[in-house]
Amino acid sequence: MLTLYYAPGSCARASHIALREAGAEFDLHPVDFASAEQRSAAYRKVNPKGRVPALQTERGILTETPAILAYIAQSFPAANLAPLDDPFEFARLQAFNSYLCATVHVAHAHSRRGERWADDPAAIAEMKRKTPEVMADCFLLIEDNLFTGPWVMGGTYSVADAYLFTIAQWLPVHRINSARYPKVRDHMSRMLARSAVQATLEAESAD
Amino acid sequence: MLTLYYAPGSCARASHIALREAGAEFDLHPVDFASAEQRSAAYRKVNPKGRVPALQTERGILTETPAILAYIAQSFPAANLAPLDDPFEFARLQAFNSYLCATVHVAHAHSRRGERWADDPAAIAEMKRKTPEVMADCFLLIEDNLFTGPWVMGGTYSVADAYLFTIAQWLPVHRINSARYPKVRDHMSRMLARSAVQATLEAESAD
Repeated sequence: MLTLYYAPGSCARASHIALREAGAEFDLHPVDFASAEQRSAAYRKVNPKGRVPALQTERGILTETPAILAYIAQSFPAANLAPLDDPFEFARLQAFNSYLCATVHVAHAHSRRGERWADDPAAIAEMKRKTPEVMADCFLLIEDNLFTGPWVMGGTYSVADAYLFTIAQWLPVHRINSARYPKVRDHMSRMLARSAVQATLEAESAD
Repeated sequence: MLTLYYAPGSCARASHIALREAGAEFDLHPVDFASAEQRSAAYRKVNPKGRVPALQTERGILTETPAILAYIAQSFPAANLAPLDDPFEFARLQAFNSYLCATVHVAHAHSRRGERWADDPAAIAEMKRKTPEVMADCFLLIEDNLFTGPWVMGGTYSVADAYLFTIAQWLPVHRINSARYPKVRDHMSRMLARSAVQATLEAESAD
């Protein structure tokens, strides 16, 4: 049995959606960010990085969204959530996920976790001020260069769609109007029509 | 034929080493960071992100180190550079690579690319000041929690070793003494004994 450690609305939502798209049986274990549970000694035994997501499997714990998404796709091949038999296409998918993880999510984190990279409150405030500009640039690159359409990889839905949807939902936090990104906006509305996405949002709001 | 766009000493070194370990035929295309060639219009046609590495393949260009490393491992399975038939072990490898990409490399970038996240010179200086502390914490986590040994994944060498070696070589930039990380230091010395690593360093210094 799989258990997903997550916080509602966090990047763990991508793994949550992917588990549902895969038809996996899993438990959800909420981690309370409001009380900083992710940095507690108990949670650090699950994930010493003090972050979500973490996926408990029968063989041990996995972390990092791109790794978990590929794991779900490979573990449930019948769900066809990644081009598993084509190293080039699989790498295209992984490059997209890596960009979301290492550039877009990192840009977002500068608005709320600036203490990771600076102690001076003025520097932390300056990072927060610039975040909307950096996020907007990231989404322009996605819109103009990275998005194949109608899904991220082209005609076939994949775990990358779950990840893009998860991070695109943070645009309003930065007061960025998604109208600047018509392909991404259309993608968000099609994602919201999927039953796995609806079930994910329902489960996370019930927490 | 493959062509690797790289800059000497950059994170592209991981892909460079992996190509040699795989026994791949490839060309090297240096990108001159000193003249900011990576941000030129010509290079942005190769990689609109304006970064290295980029791997030109017969089917198109791939970016992002974790994606390229998995691609090399999958394209040259005889080299046994990743646990390709075990989704859990493959995810462990990918989680390690993702941590290097999205946390450790990002920490390093705050010392030299602070303008990505702030405009104010004082904020950029503050990020640079804190970088050695953040990098040191990352390597403690690697040493104590993520490194299986004797190689990253255990008994078998993988593309994750090429990536760890590449980023560990940046420790002296931050005046961090690798003696604090005996497993990482031992790993670096064993990496330097590999012919693929020696050939990589020679090729990059000849550039």
